Amino acid sequence: VTIDDVRAAAGRLAGYAVRTPLLESSALNARAGGRVLIKPETLQRVGAFKFRGAYNRLVQLAPEQRRAGVVAFSSGNHAQGVALAARLLDMPATIVMPADAPAVKAEATRGYGADIRFYDRAREDREAIAAEIATARGAVIVPAFDDEHIIAGQGTVGLELVEDAAAMGLQLDLVAYPVGGGGLVAGGATAIKALSPATEVWGVEPALFDDTRRSLEAGERLGVAPGSRSLCDALESPAPGRITFPIIQQTVAGVAVVTDAEVAEAMRYAFAALKLVVEPGGSVALAALLSGKLEAKGRTIALVLSGGNVDPDLFARAIRGEL
Amino acid sequence: VTIDDVRAAAGRLAGYAVRTPLLESSALNARAGGRVLIKPETLQRVGAFKFRGAYNRLVQLAPEQRRAGVVAFSSGNHAQGVALAARLLDMPATIVMPADAPAVKAEATRGYGADIRFYDRAREDREAIAAEIATARGAVIVPAFDDEHIIAGQGTVGLELVEDAAAMGLQLDLVAYPVGGGGLVAGGATAIKALSPATEVWGVEPALFDDTRRSLEAGERLGVAPGSRSLCDALESPAPGRITFPIIQQTVAGVAVVTDAEVAEAMRYAFAALKLVVEPGGSVALAALLSGKLEAKGRTIALVLSGGNVDPDLFARAIRGEL
Repeated sequence: VTIDDVRAAAGRLAGYAVRTPLLESSALNARAGGRVLIKPETLQRVGAFKFRGAYNRLVQLAPEQRRAGVVAFSSGNHAQGVALAARLLDMPATIVMPADAPAVKAEATRGYGADIRFYDRAREDREAIAAEIATARGAVIVPAFDDEHIIAGQGTVGLELVEDAAAMGLQLDLVAYPVGGGGLVAGGATAIKALSPATEVWGVEPALFDDTRRSLEAGERLGVAPGSRSLCDALESPAPGRITFPIIQQTVAGVAVVTDAEVAEAMRYAFAALKLVVEPGGSVALAALLSGKLEAKGRTIALVLSGGNVDPDLFARAIRGEL
Repeated sequence: VTIDDVRAAAGRLAGYAVRTPLLESSALNARAGGRVLIKPETLQRVGAFKFRGAYNRLVQLAPEQRRAGVVAFSSGNHAQGVALAARLLDMPATIVMPADAPAVKAEATRGYGADIRFYDRAREDREAIAAEIATARGAVIVPAFDDEHIIAGQGTVGLELVEDAAAMGLQLDLVAYPVGGGGLVAGGATAIKALSPATEVWGVEPALFDDTRRSLEAGERLGVAPGSRSLCDALESPAPGRITFPIIQQTVAGVAVVTDAEVAEAMRYAFAALKLVVEPGGSVALAALLSGKLEAKGRTIALVLSGGNVDPDLFARAIRGEL
């Protein structure tokens, strides 16, 4: 994946994806002791960056592939991205989703016209289910992150960050991304390192899902412990991708890890100080900053808030300090 | 107040106020049957448009006035705007605030360094208290809306709306503003009618506080019934202003009125579909659209979401459907 791939994706997305703004809060700047730019992908179509990669993948399918449609497995945001991209391109879509996915994500996916096949996380294999559906229908499987077109699409978040910071006369010292399977950070780091080599790119993972951090230390792809769960449903990926991991090895300066309590506090802070609705997985970069795990003092940094699809009851508990 | 006053205010605010973006949601467009642009003043400094007018007023005070400082009475957002503007300009500020103002607004006002004098809504006269403090200290009273510099400052919301819509190649058919005392809509309508005379400007008021709607019908300033209360704490103004009302008479096409239930539903919708935290008073224009009280079909309209300062418990109840 190269900067040219990311630029080509940006061309395909123009007029379809939202060019999300860069926001700034004087309260957050004061607390960080530096300048903090917020990239709210919460305001993206489907409420998360995932639309970018999904659309960039689906729009490149051949006409006969479009007729047979697509299959994806996802706990929610990739599901919505694929469902909306498929609807815009007039293709059928089936999503294989865990039965305990957030209700708001399942409803939205159905709202974009996709069929949902729920599965039991403990007893069924989502990849096998997706492969079976794909074979039966001649449909294309759309991976959540381990795909060059998906990575290039997510990379447009990083491209916009560098361009829009430059338009403000700013050079970014550090950019922090949430990391699940690594598509967002791999694409973003590709764009950022090409355009602004001095910018450090950091990943942030939730506790128990620090597989990318441990894999970077080990120099090989390691998985999470079976049965692990996190408040950050969007970041519960079992291991770094075969394609994303080598990119991350070459481009990412470090990975911070945050606890569920730090994530809940970041959600509360985003509500109170930024007036933004951010889901748990979308809050990890902010959580890392607020808990002192990213070095912001005297620097210009950017945080990607990657999604805002959260059930009202969970959000209510987070802002009341009940999580 | 003229477009030149609004332009001059915009010059004073450049680099101090946030130029809030224009946001768009395909779900909201589909629901409205038109194109809906959102101006989120929730993302403004202090979480509400009020910073614009307050800064435009305070920055024009003479050096000897700055030393004596300012006094304002406000239930919260104007208080925060005055407090922050005073801090930026190194002036003392005292705010006269009802004892039952939202806690989040009182805390933030104190956080900006202002002194707060709480009063009892039922038994004390806030104007008398403010006048007494002003006399004792030689301080300037900063009105919440009935002041030409305040109106010109709030008018920059309308100026940005027209400029940014034009940059997107759009002409606005209608712009809807929340209305309390009328500073925001009077300033905004002044800018909009000067730059885009065909654009209809609408106000939206909460039930029981439809004093501007009734005053327009009567052709004279009428007040609200004593003791009235609304979910929209930010819009509980007793009557249109002496300066704002004639401007509104000349520029505003109509005023819609929304119920507390419609406001709560708009807060829930902004959370779920727009991923924005909007306070009750900030939600009334969206509430008017969602309840069919603004004509959006086939048109390009803009809604000002004027503030996002809401106590977590109230917000939690709104998004859970408990209001």
